[in-house]
Amino acid sequence: MAFSASGLPFDDIRNLFDEMPGPDEHAAEDIREREAQLTKPAGSLGQLESLAEWMGTWQGRSRPTVTRPLIAVFAASHGIAARGVSAFPPEVTHQMVQNFASGGAAVNQLCTTYELGLKVFELALDYPTGDIVETDAMDEKGCAATIAYGMEAISGGIDLVGLGEMGIGNTAVAAAIFHALYGGEAADWVGRGTGVDDAGLTRKAEAVAAAVGRIGSTRDPLEILRRLGGREIAAMVGTIIAGRMERVPVIVDGFVTTAAAAIVHAMRPDAIDHCLFAHCSAEAAHGAVLQRLGRKPLLDLGLRLGEGTGAAIAASIVRAAVATHAGMATFGDAGVAEKGSEPRPPTTH
Amino acid sequence: MAFSASGLPFDDIRNLFDEMPGPDEHAAEDIREREAQLTKPAGSLGQLESLAEWMGTWQGRSRPTVTRPLIAVFAASHGIAARGVSAFPPEVTHQMVQNFASGGAAVNQLCTTYELGLKVFELALDYPTGDIVETDAMDEKGCAATIAYGMEAISGGIDLVGLGEMGIGNTAVAAAIFHALYGGEAADWVGRGTGVDDAGLTRKAEAVAAAVGRIGSTRDPLEILRRLGGREIAAMVGTIIAGRMERVPVIVDGFVTTAAAAIVHAMRPDAIDHCLFAHCSAEAAHGAVLQRLGRKPLLDLGLRLGEGTGAAIAASIVRAAVATHAGMATFGDAGVAEKGSEPRPPTTH
Repeated sequence: MAFSASGLPFDDIRNLFDEMPGPDEHAAEDIREREAQLTKPAGSLGQLESLAEWMGTWQGRSRPTVTRPLIAVFAASHGIAARGVSAFPPEVTHQMVQNFASGGAAVNQLCTTYELGLKVFELALDYPTGDIVETDAMDEKGCAATIAYGMEAISGGIDLVGLGEMGIGNTAVAAAIFHALYGGEAADWVGRGTGVDDAGLTRKAEAVAAAVGRIGSTRDPLEILRRLGGREIAAMVGTIIAGRMERVPVIVDGFVTTAAAAIVHAMRPDAIDHCLFAHCSAEAAHGAVLQRLGRKPLLDLGLRLGEGTGAAIAASIVRAAVATHAGMATFGDAGVAEKGSEPRPPTTH
Repeated sequence: MAFSASGLPFDDIRNLFDEMPGPDEHAAEDIREREAQLTKPAGSLGQLESLAEWMGTWQGRSRPTVTRPLIAVFAASHGIAARGVSAFPPEVTHQMVQNFASGGAAVNQLCTTYELGLKVFELALDYPTGDIVETDAMDEKGCAATIAYGMEAISGGIDLVGLGEMGIGNTAVAAAIFHALYGGEAADWVGRGTGVDDAGLTRKAEAVAAAVGRIGSTRDPLEILRRLGGREIAAMVGTIIAGRMERVPVIVDGFVTTAAAAIVHAMRPDAIDHCLFAHCSAEAAHGAVLQRLGRKPLLDLGLRLGEGTGAAIAASIVRAAVATHAGMATFGDAGVAEKGSEPRPPTTH
């Protein structure tokens, strides 16, 4: 990842947007051409066909691969959690990171089942970001460093990355980002997260309203990220940008992960064209956010756990799409008659 | 499979409906109890949770398994295909069976990717069923024998079966079954199948209308099956019934496979409670049929290939659901605080 040494850290990140590679139309054309020869009616594999083309387009390969897929889970602590905006106490973030390490969480089972790599990145868990009702989550240097840290997640020959997160309080932070980006009322963007009760939901909406009120008319997406947090969202912004620069397609998971995609989208809408949205979260506002981004998710399984669980399932479907495209016989190879051929009497053997 | 020796073949099959095991509520209760202890917010795995419970309920196991999953693809030839109701000539059925055998079809790639067993059952391909515009597809003995043949698909310790089919002309046959079962106009149930053109679509609707007109007021579901065909649909009826009797949950694929489920459903609506509907096919009428069956499919990926492709993807999600339920740590195991616990200061280490 080439950083310019221009001065302000955020400028380094903004400059990357001018160097982003676009879609590889040559690869896409090769894929469409092969697709048309495979032993099936044209278009009959639906989204499996579009996923294969999307992978090739952003990997820049006529034969896309899913050889080293990774689910990258970013964990962070949030000062706002102390306000009782979550159904779970803040120490659960630490405890769940231990649970990831010992293989006991949902995402562990999914990665084992689907043979996906799994890495958990801890972001200074013992030092929660500031309570965003009162203070900024990060300073510019810290935010830029966290974005840069997230860029490293795809090192080592990863060819597909799914994003996941863990951080008690982070659906409140994500809701604050959406509220700051898209306006409306705080209550429009706030949901029950891990299952907060009615009183908690009210506290959550009030905290989100206060945090967004505090940052006033801030419109710069990186400034919104810096002031509202959290570190896992900043790191995922980095992974999304690095995925684009290094031609590693990215699978966005649920509500919190989408906040990272929304920051990148607000900086430049086509900068998330290499991202697939895995699923529509059961968290209430996710559908509205996806609509703002103009994206239809692959799955709708009622998930609202985070951890990259939806991204893992989607990754397995992307792998199947790529394997189907690569492995199927063509009409010529298999001696199968094409559409519109004249009927012949059935072979007798 | 215990057949009674009562006389008429269809009676043997009807008698099985009186012996069908119901849901195992004890297993379901065990699964819900364990689910509540797993390290995640209650309900946050959405359909993965309900799939685990569904598997246990119909396998009759508190810890459901997906150890020997099978995609069973049934191939058959149809006299109606000679009427030009398909975009492809009839010999493609033979050729695709060869393609399955040599590993070149879409379903082969999916079964390899997801480590699912795959068996292809050929149903007298050289002897197409009669042209149903003019004559019945099968006699009672032949239809019952084909159903019995389909029952054997789950032998050998299979613990999850996904249904698939191949047969040029069989979306016309499936449309005829739906038209006979549910009324309306032939055009309501007819779609483009493998991609038939406008003229072909008109021929297809006319043929379906004529076939259903020919069988008049036939209302018995097994008689509708016998008179309209096809053999792959009869065999899948057998697999669905056997799955229920032997506690092997069944995944129904797309439009044609759903015709088999619709026959069983018409015999007794709760006799398909052990069936999961994998996906909503892009074949136009599939959504309307699923609505008649009162079922919501797991996926919506725009597939319309058949072969069990949607069932294979769904099977991989069922496997993940079962693995997640079995493998996750409980709150107690992992030392994770439960919902509503009092916050403590973050651990420092």
